[in-house]
Amino acid sequence: MKTVGVVLSGCGFLDGAEIHESVLTLYFLDRAGARAICMAPNRPQAKVVNHLTGEVDPADTRNVLWESARIARGDIRDLKDANPEDLDALILPGGFGAALNLCDFAEKGAQGSVDPDLEALVRAMHGAGKPIGAICIAPAVIALVLGAEGPRLTIGSDPDTAAALAAAGASHVERSAKEDLVDAETRIVTTPAYMCGTGPAEVGAGIEKLVTDLLALA
Amino acid sequence: MKTVGVVLSGCGFLDGAEIHESVLTLYFLDRAGARAICMAPNRPQAKVVNHLTGEVDPADTRNVLWESARIARGDIRDLKDANPEDLDALILPGGFGAALNLCDFAEKGAQGSVDPDLEALVRAMHGAGKPIGAICIAPAVIALVLGAEGPRLTIGSDPDTAAALAAAGASHVERSAKEDLVDAETRIVTTPAYMCGTGPAEVGAGIEKLVTDLLALA
Repeated sequence: MKTVGVVLSGCGFLDGAEIHESVLTLYFLDRAGARAICMAPNRPQAKVVNHLTGEVDPADTRNVLWESARIARGDIRDLKDANPEDLDALILPGGFGAALNLCDFAEKGAQGSVDPDLEALVRAMHGAGKPIGAICIAPAVIALVLGAEGPRLTIGSDPDTAAALAAAGASHVERSAKEDLVDAETRIVTTPAYMCGTGPAEVGAGIEKLVTDLLALA
Repeated sequence: MKTVGVVLSGCGFLDGAEIHESVLTLYFLDRAGARAICMAPNRPQAKVVNHLTGEVDPADTRNVLWESARIARGDIRDLKDANPEDLDALILPGGFGAALNLCDFAEKGAQGSVDPDLEALVRAMHGAGKPIGAICIAPAVIALVLGAEGPRLTIGSDPDTAAALAAAGASHVERSAKEDLVDAETRIVTTPAYMCGTGPAEVGAGIEKLVTDLLALA
């Protein structure tokens, strides 16, 4: 049985992990017979957004690990305790949380930096030749950590985001939400999901491909 | 295209809607070409639970509609504005929220009562011969509203919960998480999901069957 780390960034696409992408990742991993280990940083969210109105609630504060535990049904660990030796592969679902709570790409683009524990985990996995999957905006995390290696990544077709990934050293390749992109050289697999997808079936098709291709590399 | 109302009860299995069940419901509806309309009551949650520790946070309050909007990606309406004429079928995912925020079954069992807007919606849908699906603990809502008709329902195999459904007038039938139960007479379809399921693949198999059977009746 292959074991895959799934890095969550909260619970809700406007301030945390995109819920559909996270659940469909866990669903396809489980269906393929892989074991998922969910993890998230134990720190305050960058912000809390009311998902009905789309407005920031400045009076509210939430913890990334506690909120991610909602998606993981409590079965989650602090990202700082992640051991790359326990994992055959790593997946980062998207949502603004990936660009707000796992790194500061949302604010600083290609000049951003990544949570030190996550950066260390990504470097260790990559250094050991283990594949990494990134969904939606999460390829930004990969570009910030591994941009110097020129990975081929997709975030769909948004020109500004693609330009920011390129500024960090990545080569952007257009893909639809139903597709994924496998960079066999760097062993990184990406799919655009809700960067351009319109619903869970379309996004699920891309994530199903990502999980299949990632496990084949693991 | 068939239109299906999906009634959410928050965001997280300990105090709201079970997230995997909710997302997999939306995924299988979308994949089958049905349109989902998410809805939730605009009221405070009965409680807020830290999903990492499992402990109630007495200092926190959250709104059921706002939190449900996280699962629905903002595309959700107040349950009180639901129009049964717009809907071909109705699905209630589970999670403790279904027994805490949609009714008070968690506290009062077969003596409980259901949110008046939801009770009216369930009665209207059922009266018009439209099918209703209920997942995990959500069959409790159906038993409280339609128990007098003696619907055949499953919540898996938990004897205490099954006895409470029976006390409300339902006939309980054992099923595994991978199965569903179709009561052709009352047009109610149920599946146990995380009442006994161990992971998203197993729970997804039952929800996939529920969605397929529900749409066939719609």
